[in-house]
Amino acid sequence: MSGHFVFDPAIENDFPNFVTHLECSYTGETFPSNQIHGLSPAGKPLLVRYDLPALATSVSKDALAARPGGFWKYREFLPVRQSSNVVSLGEVMTPLIPLHKLAAKGGELLIKDEGRLPTGSFKARGLALAVAMAKELGIRRLAMPTNGNAGAAMAAYATRAGMETTIFCPDDTPEVNVSEIEYQGGKVYRVNGLINDCGKIVGEGKEPTGWFDCSTLKEPYRIEGKKTMGLELAEQLGWDVPDVIFYPTGGGTGLIGMWKAFAELEAIGWIGSKRPKMVAVQSTGCAPIVKAFEDGEEHAPLWENAFTIASGIRVPVAVGDFLILRAVRESGGFAIAVEDKDIVQAQAEVAREEGLLLCPEGAATFAAYKQSVAEGRIKASDRAVLYNCATGLKYPMPVISRRLDKNQPIDYSSI
Amino acid sequence: MSGHFVFDPAIENDFPNFVTHLECSYTGETFPSNQIHGLSPAGKPLLVRYDLPALATSVSKDALAARPGGFWKYREFLPVRQSSNVVSLGEVMTPLIPLHKLAAKGGELLIKDEGRLPTGSFKARGLALAVAMAKELGIRRLAMPTNGNAGAAMAAYATRAGMETTIFCPDDTPEVNVSEIEYQGGKVYRVNGLINDCGKIVGEGKEPTGWFDCSTLKEPYRIEGKKTMGLELAEQLGWDVPDVIFYPTGGGTGLIGMWKAFAELEAIGWIGSKRPKMVAVQSTGCAPIVKAFEDGEEHAPLWENAFTIASGIRVPVAVGDFLILRAVRESGGFAIAVEDKDIVQAQAEVAREEGLLLCPEGAATFAAYKQSVAEGRIKASDRAVLYNCATGLKYPMPVISRRLDKNQPIDYSSI
Repeated sequence: MSGHFVFDPAIENDFPNFVTHLECSYTGETFPSNQIHGLSPAGKPLLVRYDLPALATSVSKDALAARPGGFWKYREFLPVRQSSNVVSLGEVMTPLIPLHKLAAKGGELLIKDEGRLPTGSFKARGLALAVAMAKELGIRRLAMPTNGNAGAAMAAYATRAGMETTIFCPDDTPEVNVSEIEYQGGKVYRVNGLINDCGKIVGEGKEPTGWFDCSTLKEPYRIEGKKTMGLELAEQLGWDVPDVIFYPTGGGTGLIGMWKAFAELEAIGWIGSKRPKMVAVQSTGCAPIVKAFEDGEEHAPLWENAFTIASGIRVPVAVGDFLILRAVRESGGFAIAVEDKDIVQAQAEVAREEGLLLCPEGAATFAAYKQSVAEGRIKASDRAVLYNCATGLKYPMPVISRRLDKNQPIDYSSI
Repeated sequence: MSGHFVFDPAIENDFPNFVTHLECSYTGETFPSNQIHGLSPAGKPLLVRYDLPALATSVSKDALAARPGGFWKYREFLPVRQSSNVVSLGEVMTPLIPLHKLAAKGGELLIKDEGRLPTGSFKARGLALAVAMAKELGIRRLAMPTNGNAGAAMAAYATRAGMETTIFCPDDTPEVNVSEIEYQGGKVYRVNGLINDCGKIVGEGKEPTGWFDCSTLKEPYRIEGKKTMGLELAEQLGWDVPDVIFYPTGGGTGLIGMWKAFAELEAIGWIGSKRPKMVAVQSTGCAPIVKAFEDGEEHAPLWENAFTIASGIRVPVAVGDFLILRAVRESGGFAIAVEDKDIVQAQAEVAREEGLLLCPEGAATFAAYKQSVAEGRIKASDRAVLYNCATGLKYPMPVISRRLDKNQPIDYSSI
């Protein structure tokens, strides 16, 4: 590709790779990086570690600024060794959109609109990396439980890479998600349960089927993809961080990933020690992280009878619970639950006032922002970033029934 | 905004403006630029003209390359004078995605995915400019007929700018479009007719209501927005043009706009005299431009009983017909109609093989590409660009009914 602005990482020259090893996020035990891994023997997520001093000498802020495209441009910060294993569907740097009308007085409120990524959600980041690494490690068959968007991203990237996917979702998953998974080459089943029930089916099926389990944090690379949310945000802000980040938290990979990104950026001297307050946003109908945060617990037990209209954060139990809670606490942030009615109202308010259609999970972050300002948990003058994790177009909206008959005289005074 | 990558054109320093006048696209009659205009007295679209030599000395390719963001970065090529009138919802440079598996042997096939723009379609380009110019000219109330996506874009940008919109669409417009228009602050009516019937309601309502008519090409600025498709494509290809462009053609603003962009780029010496073959893609159920092209006519009469599943190109009569036909002929291109069944098949093929979900109109361009290669109308070795004008997520997909019961033993051998 000759174009300056078509950065096709799969056909560019190889990038140097700085992965040194994998490390259990709970025990610190280390593992070699060039092998297939799931959870650590302790049953906890594995984190990828890099030779950061060497990385720092290999890439500059200017070099990154000159690369077009989205998250694949952070290749030196990512685990994929061979460029031929990179799988791309046209990633873009997702925009930061100021909400001038809705920011608290004297403050700055920015939406990071992840709906612009391939398959319309932030899940593209994690699954692109999971699929690329699976390809690099010779895996051909992937399986995953999903609330919808992760399955769509995995199906699309796996199809692009020529791999098979089998995906399980709760039976009330939005029709558009189920259809897009299958249409983009995945094989999808509805299950009469929640995402953890679907995860159990994947777990038990691994042995008889030979599937590789791509569940949230059960393989080490989705978090590296989500890490790019932190790298990208810092770059967009001129290698700075905002005062506070509101993140819709289901499995929490993105929150954990951003926290890891900021640590790596500080280690190479690109940002200072300032951190945003990390705010985990959940629904009052499914708030295991909020409860554990308030109870001072390290882990968050399964939330019974989970329900919320924001299905992406309807995750009753998260394998990375302690990592979410650790990041939230170290950052001086908090976990907060909002009611479904406030999510609905927040979504309508942002659309009506700013012309921006958020997904319910994104709208939950705006509801949480308002609540946090009102309760004094953040300052009105803070620069706050809200993650809109998916395009609002995938979700139902109010039905409009206004009609005109072209064959009748039109009373324009009534229009 | 301090961030290097947050290019907020509304709060950047003012850019120089090079508009000299407006010109009737049919008679060449000229008009002053700082006034409200609809069609010319001859009933034809007005084109914006610039002092291109002055423009050329004011901006460089390097300066553009250093600006982040989407189409607003081409400010010198656009008519908005005051930056305070720029309306932005987080535009991005839409990606060019290579279809490695589906390109003809020895050729290169690129999808320009316009679904990544605000409101999920290329309509954002034209309507952002129309709304910004309406704001600059003191207009407060906008009206428009739409097949869906244009209405959504106008509602969103107008809401962002604090303006009122009234929108009329055919009664079978997809529910998601009708809802998103209203949800984003527009007032929308379904009409028992096609887009030209809706346009008549707008035209007749202008006088009693005081609406400004934002119909395709009936105001001079949507085409300037669509022109950025040509600027952006040329920049992405290293200031070059592809061999052929397949463009889904309803009102044709984008095709006309790209043709204008290439002329302006040649005038300032940024590209040479080479032009892509411009291919207007329509459906066999609504092919007025194809018929006029084949009949050697300058204008395309209304197509009776128009029907196609690709509602965006269900436009029975286009006020810019002669401009579309002129560009197609001057480019050495052609107009081509594809059958609905081939659109459906093309959409499924691209999703299944490449993991990319196109809209029906975008899928029509892939069907047209295959047909054109097969018939020898283009060379297999050509570098072809297909415009996917909207996200495929707004359109119905096949319904999937595969289910599993978590309470029963699972026969993994059958999965």
